[in-house]
Amino acid sequence: MFKQTEGGVTAAKGFMAASTAAGIKYKDRTDMAMVYSEVPCTVAGTFTTNVVKAAPVLWDKMIADEKKTAQVVVINAGIANACTGEIGYSYCEQTAKAAEEALNIPYDNVFVASTGVIGKQLPIDKIMAGTKVLAGKLNGSIEAGTDAAKAIMTTDTKKKEIAVSMMLGGKEVTLGGMCKGSGMIHPNMCTMLGFITTDANISKELLDKALKEDVQDTYNMVSVDGDTSTNDTVLLMANGLAGNEKITSADSEDYKTFAAALHFVNEYLSMRIAEDGEGATKLFTAKVINAKTKAAAKVLAKSVITSSLTKAAVYGNDANWGRILCALGYSGEQFDPYKVDITITDGTDTLMLVENGMATDYSEEFATKILSGKEVTAVANMKDGEATATAWGCDLTYDYVKINADYRS
Amino acid sequence: MFKQTEGGVTAAKGFMAASTAAGIKYKDRTDMAMVYSEVPCTVAGTFTTNVVKAAPVLWDKMIADEKKTAQVVVINAGIANACTGEIGYSYCEQTAKAAEEALNIPYDNVFVASTGVIGKQLPIDKIMAGTKVLAGKLNGSIEAGTDAAKAIMTTDTKKKEIAVSMMLGGKEVTLGGMCKGSGMIHPNMCTMLGFITTDANISKELLDKALKEDVQDTYNMVSVDGDTSTNDTVLLMANGLAGNEKITSADSEDYKTFAAALHFVNEYLSMRIAEDGEGATKLFTAKVINAKTKAAAKVLAKSVITSSLTKAAVYGNDANWGRILCALGYSGEQFDPYKVDITITDGTDTLMLVENGMATDYSEEFATKILSGKEVTAVANMKDGEATATAWGCDLTYDYVKINADYRS
Repeated sequence: MFKQTEGGVTAAKGFMAASTAAGIKYKDRTDMAMVYSEVPCTVAGTFTTNVVKAAPVLWDKMIADEKKTAQVVVINAGIANACTGEIGYSYCEQTAKAAEEALNIPYDNVFVASTGVIGKQLPIDKIMAGTKVLAGKLNGSIEAGTDAAKAIMTTDTKKKEIAVSMMLGGKEVTLGGMCKGSGMIHPNMCTMLGFITTDANISKELLDKALKEDVQDTYNMVSVDGDTSTNDTVLLMANGLAGNEKITSADSEDYKTFAAALHFVNEYLSMRIAEDGEGATKLFTAKVINAKTKAAAKVLAKSVITSSLTKAAVYGNDANWGRILCALGYSGEQFDPYKVDITITDGTDTLMLVENGMATDYSEEFATKILSGKEVTAVANMKDGEATATAWGCDLTYDYVKINADYRS
Repeated sequence: MFKQTEGGVTAAKGFMAASTAAGIKYKDRTDMAMVYSEVPCTVAGTFTTNVVKAAPVLWDKMIADEKKTAQVVVINAGIANACTGEIGYSYCEQTAKAAEEALNIPYDNVFVASTGVIGKQLPIDKIMAGTKVLAGKLNGSIEAGTDAAKAIMTTDTKKKEIAVSMMLGGKEVTLGGMCKGSGMIHPNMCTMLGFITTDANISKELLDKALKEDVQDTYNMVSVDGDTSTNDTVLLMANGLAGNEKITSADSEDYKTFAAALHFVNEYLSMRIAEDGEGATKLFTAKVINAKTKAAAKVLAKSVITSSLTKAAVYGNDANWGRILCALGYSGEQFDPYKVDITITDGTDTLMLVENGMATDYSEEFATKILSGKEVTAVANMKDGEATATAWGCDLTYDYVKINADYRS
């Protein structure tokens, strides 16, 4: 239906990117990126549900929901434009106007995004200067996309990007994305910073639908530390340059293919965020099967990956299934604990730890071997229905504490 | 109205305690305790809301709600009777029958409680033998109560006990308590293990009311790690030996004095649990003032003390007020961030970090000095009403990870 291809945000036709070292906070690294489309895009966005919304969230929401088109995103890392009061919104406007001047596009077609320490004032002069530099460096190469993915990192240790291509109505359509996120990760209704570009020709209504539905099963099922950021944003930009017949029906095969490809991209990026959680040594996935409802399955899965005790046990390669059962139990969902089976797997080996709520006669040594992998999945079979959900998290380590006890200095 | 006095569970008339080393898991320390009243007690209990309820919770709930009287509690530490299936309930029964035989009281007047590693089978023979040893060592001294408070500790580093006395209708009435709790602490509707004894003469109805109402503002406002245990239990036993006229009206001055004294005891024990959270170096209190409703104030305060990022910042003595504001924001309560003031205090010095949602021009050096204390309070003034709530937690440290990555070994 679709296949993975090279690159990220510049993989789709007509998209270019650039990055630069604007000197916002970090030394010796890039800290600003730009993603640009040759033509205006239909856009969709999902944003944090935190009551404390950062200025760029308000700005981008205005563009995604009211203006409905955009052509460029300007992103800075190091200091987040958050908790900055009314001046924060004027920073968005000033950045957008710098892009307007440099690129000759309307300022209300400019998305802005910001990540880093919160509570410090943004060096707006550096950001406006950086925006102009970025405009002069735009490039459609795969490398330019990869460099942009690196420039938006904060405590991330790996850049996160992916691209897929598919045939829609005889035309090749590409979808690429990048994101960042490592701490303050517990998205709700949306996520950390994610940027997805496509040359698909698709209506605004269906672009919104595809993104809003899919974030519920992808970014919103990730948690590093239970803290929902003030700046969470995912933007999806479609410039139509693939030349496919416009997708306008949610029942069409083309829409289904596009939505499946989008899900693949979002799921991939979500897993990369989870495994690169601050201080994490491994990806910890919780899969709940045979739950009563989809909503229940999601609550149960998320409860397991957010349990500090379970996360610390995963770090210690300790098959502490009691903590998993306990986390299912306090999730808020009702179930019969004496029906639950719990299995762990590293993708190769599988071991049942609990059957019908009671410990099996498993080998602790074998359990430790499985838990020592870089990707560990706990599967809880509720035997209570047919619904399934997956949530992604990471282990809780000394380094998480270290990073966050001293992040601002 | 009431005053703090010496001791804990043996402070009230007619209560005795004992402790012993039954060899359940630990070496070279006591691990079982008994609290006994010379005469049967009116009792009240509150228990975990975790769907996965440990057998002792089911057993004690049956006694508190159906039998309505009890005379003794048998407690073991080291291995918790939890996730043990039907056999777990039979362990409660066997323990109660051992106490029946040793003390010559009905077995359905015996509370049992259990704390420690979950998922391992209980060495019931050791526990039955220990119960008999305890029965032979019962003693009404202050020291016997203190030793019991030590015997029920798991990862706790300090014993937790308190007693207060008051005059009710010309009679001296005493109320004493002990508790344990350090990890898997995020009580909901009830708490970790807590045992409160009193010689007050009070109706079952009012004893229930006093306990159930007060846990909402005390134990339920504590969180160490967000994990609600399967074994959370608070038991309150009143033997009437003070000889005061029976308290039967919630409007009486005697009831109000008793409830206030109970609140003092519960709040004291709650704070001790929070400050002795696994790996904690300090007590971190969040106080929300001028919130729209009491319920909102509680949700907001609890959101701050459960934020991993905020807890790590408190450990690092970092005045990261952005994380506090962020945690208020994702709590689920609605408010205007541009009205909020945030102040920190160590009890002596006070510093406003945020006024109307914006950073003040505060001294980072002075903020670090305040945060370096052993007890740090963050006060959030919502300017949105008149309701107040307080929640207690602790900092997130390397040692929390260390303790929990390797708890079972």
